[in-house]
Amino acid sequence: MNFSMIKNIIGKIMVLLSILMIFPLIVSIIYFKDEGIWNVLAYAVPIVVLFVVGIILSHKKLDNKKMGAREGFVIVSLSWLLMSLFGCIPFIIIGVVNGKQGIPNFFDAFFEMASGFTTTGSSIVDDVEALAKSVQFWRSFSHWIGGMGILVFILALIPESNEGSSMHILRAESPGPQVGKLVSKMKVTSRILYIIYFVITLVLFLFLYIGHLTGIDPKMDLFKSIIYSLGTAGTGGFSVDSAGFAEFSPYSQYVVAIGMIVFAINFTIYYLAILFRFKEIWKNEELKAFFIILAISVVVITIDVYSVYTVLKNRDVTMTLEESFRHSLFQVASIVSTTGYTSANFTVWPTLSKTLIIFLTIFGGCAGSTAGGFKISRVVMLFKTVFVKIKNMISPRKVETIKYNGTTLDESTTNGVQSFLIIYVIVLVGCALLVSIDGNDLVTNFTASLTCISNVGPAFGKAFANFNCYSWFSKLLFTIEMIAGRLEIFPLLILFYPKTWMKR
Amino acid sequence: MNFSMIKNIIGKIMVLLSILMIFPLIVSIIYFKDEGIWNVLAYAVPIVVLFVVGIILSHKKLDNKKMGAREGFVIVSLSWLLMSLFGCIPFIIIGVVNGKQGIPNFFDAFFEMASGFTTTGSSIVDDVEALAKSVQFWRSFSHWIGGMGILVFILALIPESNEGSSMHILRAESPGPQVGKLVSKMKVTSRILYIIYFVITLVLFLFLYIGHLTGIDPKMDLFKSIIYSLGTAGTGGFSVDSAGFAEFSPYSQYVVAIGMIVFAINFTIYYLAILFRFKEIWKNEELKAFFIILAISVVVITIDVYSVYTVLKNRDVTMTLEESFRHSLFQVASIVSTTGYTSANFTVWPTLSKTLIIFLTIFGGCAGSTAGGFKISRVVMLFKTVFVKIKNMISPRKVETIKYNGTTLDESTTNGVQSFLIIYVIVLVGCALLVSIDGNDLVTNFTASLTCISNVGPAFGKAFANFNCYSWFSKLLFTIEMIAGRLEIFPLLILFYPKTWMKR
Repeated sequence: MNFSMIKNIIGKIMVLLSILMIFPLIVSIIYFKDEGIWNVLAYAVPIVVLFVVGIILSHKKLDNKKMGAREGFVIVSLSWLLMSLFGCIPFIIIGVVNGKQGIPNFFDAFFEMASGFTTTGSSIVDDVEALAKSVQFWRSFSHWIGGMGILVFILALIPESNEGSSMHILRAESPGPQVGKLVSKMKVTSRILYIIYFVITLVLFLFLYIGHLTGIDPKMDLFKSIIYSLGTAGTGGFSVDSAGFAEFSPYSQYVVAIGMIVFAINFTIYYLAILFRFKEIWKNEELKAFFIILAISVVVITIDVYSVYTVLKNRDVTMTLEESFRHSLFQVASIVSTTGYTSANFTVWPTLSKTLIIFLTIFGGCAGSTAGGFKISRVVMLFKTVFVKIKNMISPRKVETIKYNGTTLDESTTNGVQSFLIIYVIVLVGCALLVSIDGNDLVTNFTASLTCISNVGPAFGKAFANFNCYSWFSKLLFTIEMIAGRLEIFPLLILFYPKTWMKR
Repeated sequence: MNFSMIKNIIGKIMVLLSILMIFPLIVSIIYFKDEGIWNVLAYAVPIVVLFVVGIILSHKKLDNKKMGAREGFVIVSLSWLLMSLFGCIPFIIIGVVNGKQGIPNFFDAFFEMASGFTTTGSSIVDDVEALAKSVQFWRSFSHWIGGMGILVFILALIPESNEGSSMHILRAESPGPQVGKLVSKMKVTSRILYIIYFVITLVLFLFLYIGHLTGIDPKMDLFKSIIYSLGTAGTGGFSVDSAGFAEFSPYSQYVVAIGMIVFAINFTIYYLAILFRFKEIWKNEELKAFFIILAISVVVITIDVYSVYTVLKNRDVTMTLEESFRHSLFQVASIVSTTGYTSANFTVWPTLSKTLIIFLTIFGGCAGSTAGGFKISRVVMLFKTVFVKIKNMISPRKVETIKYNGTTLDESTTNGVQSFLIIYVIVLVGCALLVSIDGNDLVTNFTASLTCISNVGPAFGKAFANFNCYSWFSKLLFTIEMIAGRLEIFPLLILFYPKTWMKR
């Protein structure tokens, strides 16, 4: 283990965090009149401390620049843990001084920050509207940062990073079974990705804010337009309205629904679109599968909800067909992109719709997007693997290969996907078992564990609105599970493996 | 596809079934005075018809004795479907004539028979005590037949079967990731297994019946001793008491609990024990893992149940430590062996215990036993695979191998185990999705699907006592799922694959 390099990168992470914290600092200064000096200091002091310590840790030139897969995993895992750990300090300071404006309890604040960076959006805040504006902003901004990846960001900025180490880091942080380079240089790839990310976020913001300016949705003011475009872009899901998206206009609901779908798609697709390489887009099997799953789910849930609420009239509420379609589109987009915004309380929807939503929670979005979950590409590969397996059982002598996006998949990729499913299931079920000590019901425990590992946000049962039905121990477990889910588990597992820390 | 051979084997299956049905026929004759002539005819007529048709189909000598893996799978799948389909005819006849003494509805009767042969023990009968004695017997006898395998039975009896085809059939029907031969000849292996099976069943029966004779458990009369020893040996779970095992004496509960554990262990172990090859037994990793899982589960659930019921006193009932231990041992043995008998209503136990029980439902018993589920050996292999995977990620250049029972596992076995998990999860979740159309709650749907694919029996929620909260469509789906679970899915899947039916 190259400890000096790890020290170096941790220092850089601290510097980066201190720079990022300037944004919520600005927000706290804007709202200085309402919220007072403590909220400003809650950012200013940590910024200075993190910056100074960070510089001290990282200023020395490295003798040993060698970095292997092991270092890549450790750096990524540690970075995410530390970002959440240091990032939640303002929440605690504001909470201690101003109560409900912040989050005084450490485990709660850590949970909330990790939920932010991992773009999960599960919360422990009872009353989100009481939070200080800067806290609301920092939570949603962390979605945006975490969406594309913290270290991909560093790679895009820092000039000195060498090609080999960049690849190891990108492989550990990027979601999906394979890592694709857009151009030959890793650094340029990260920059292109971040530019695309920034531009689409800006477009989304404009669409939302125009709704406000034209009077279509008076509730969606400047601040909220920023908050919700950041949260949608990162497919995070933190809300600043206790009613979620239920009270926004249909216009805003449609805009965000489409936005969530856009950010659940592999960013490579947009890069190809800019270059007019539509043939390659058309060949992309993940994209096709994604839209098929989306369409089927929306149709089935629309029919299910409409018939139960309106045709069969066995609920107190009725829904028009448009409402059924809109809420079903919004909810499916929200879950499949692992955002977790809610336009309706889907926990009271009929069981078929609920089961489908749990399905979509497992699947997640496309690889190489900001969405979490198991990833559509893996689902496609798994089904193909099983299909080929059956073929081989019938005709054992003829060995069939698995084709994906026109090329033959090598054994190590399909094996990797299978192993990932197994470890995914183990973590999912293991967490649900451990948190069951708190005595909550089965549905709450399993869907809470599922929503954390898939980075979605809301769970069924008692953990729909927030996770306060759980003890500090369970919250800590969920915090780790969220980070594990975001990093696709293996990097984090390696931290707990003693041999990782041995000198070689 | 060798159709003439399939026709031949189907004929043999019909003849076998007609011979097996003589046993419930005898029971119906014994109870002739109480139940009348119709119950006798309900067996007598199908016996004659099945025998005659079976002989006609199978009397011709085969020209083409060639049999591949494909034929093996098809024969096993078809046999199990047809056994359940033909076997349920007496239920329907008795139901139509005598109402609650039988099962008049076809889908219900098919479900019940498949549940019998697959040793699941899920039931659609509202009042098991009202069933005719012959129906009670035939249900439990089907557990015993299905436990060891229908075709293994045929192999053990029929002299003409050749070595190659026997292997294909055994591979398709036997539970577990690998098929082990005890001796060089397949036929001798099946005979040894059936003799061991018969002897242990007899010992179990004697223990139960002695309880009755000595007055320790007056309720466990001759008939019930037979019923419950058959059900325990097959790890089935059909009961003839609506209260399950709750009203039997602690003695009978302990006997059956130990019996269930005995039948969840790989039968090879007993063969090795007879030959005094204890060294090999000691090396068996599945056996060790099985007892570790068993011990941990019993300890945790005992403490959980005892503390919640008695120490914390937050329920109306109290339990002594002995009672907590007994019910927890009984329930863990029942679930891990996938039997499904109940000595207490565990659906009201605390969540931790319930979650553990769901875990055990997934795991199942040892390969090569009469238990169903995912099998402990596969669980062990999966954990080892994941562990090696992590090791390889840290040191990519050093390729680690997976050792199991002292030998290195080849890639195809570990791959097979991973694929099996995937297809297991797909079927499990897919079924839960499809049956959700009936509108039952999430917990009921998921645990019902899980209990069917693992061949356990009782589900949480509404399907604890029986499956009557479901429509005929869902019952049919569960019927197929039970057979799929018993045959470990792949053989049944192959039936639905068009290429299977092509001439080669």
